[in-house]
Amino acid sequence: MNDQPQQAPFMKLGEIGLNNFAPYLMNRIMGRYNESLREEMVERGLTTPKARTLAVLSVNDGLLIRDLSVYTVTEQSTLSRALDQLQSDGLVRRETDTLDQRAVRVFLTDDGRAAFEALWPQMSAAYSRMFRGITEDERAAFIGTLRKMLTNVRRHEL
Amino acid sequence: MNDQPQQAPFMKLGEIGLNNFAPYLMNRIMGRYNESLREEMVERGLTTPKARTLAVLSVNDGLLIRDLSVYTVTEQSTLSRALDQLQSDGLVRRETDTLDQRAVRVFLTDDGRAAFEALWPQMSAAYSRMFRGITEDERAAFIGTLRKMLTNVRRHEL
Repeated sequence: MNDQPQQAPFMKLGEIGLNNFAPYLMNRIMGRYNESLREEMVERGLTTPKARTLAVLSVNDGLLIRDLSVYTVTEQSTLSRALDQLQSDGLVRRETDTLDQRAVRVFLTDDGRAAFEALWPQMSAAYSRMFRGITEDERAAFIGTLRKMLTNVRRHEL
Repeated sequence: MNDQPQQAPFMKLGEIGLNNFAPYLMNRIMGRYNESLREEMVERGLTTPKARTLAVLSVNDGLLIRDLSVYTVTEQSTLSRALDQLQSDGLVRRETDTLDQRAVRVFLTDDGRAAFEALWPQMSAAYSRMFRGITEDERAAFIGTLRKMLTNVRRHEL
């Protein structure tokens, strides 16, 4: 039995059609989602990498910088500048790992947690808007497919 | 009857969990997908906006610049620079619209079509990799949900 999408490599994009091509639809949706949040972030002195850092640390505090780079989908050089700014704004602190002196972990400060909590209602509203009119079952199936796709494409075990 | 996801606005991100938060998963997947193509594009002298322009025109040739900006998820200023480069490389040509002298349409040249056809096997392979082990039915349902989401978030009637 073979449930792979076999025909895709042999079809042209024009035959698939943009509205059937998942990467096109996902880039359109995420472009719009990220843009809708960017306006709110700018008002709060945040950028996308800074806001994603606060969001990820609010769930997984104390991550290593290399793991934070994966979770935030941000290159280490860009992330490093974002962390410098977040630290000088008093929103995160960096600590050398207790076991590995070369590894650095990043923690939210109380102000950092408050900054994310102030941004969250906007993110949550954008998330709800995205799924308007989509049932719980359909959303659960969609998220299940996304998880398989992430396992297929990721290079890191996170 | 109400099938809206009502609980989301009242849950914290830590309660939802990153692996249940669709925007996080989608940013991770598209970050990886776009990055995997970027390497191939650079070898061909292309950037993401230039490659997306070729891809979109291969399906819908002769688009107005403002519509091309929406389809390629690229700001008009960035797109304008990409079009300058594509034109000087002989891959696209711009023509004033026959009905509206202020509107410009963009067309692929034969070289531009060939450049996209040379890139397509790599895009198609990345697309197949993304859906590895996912059945046709599951993929069709996933794409159906994506279309609803795009209708929910888009600002343009495209």
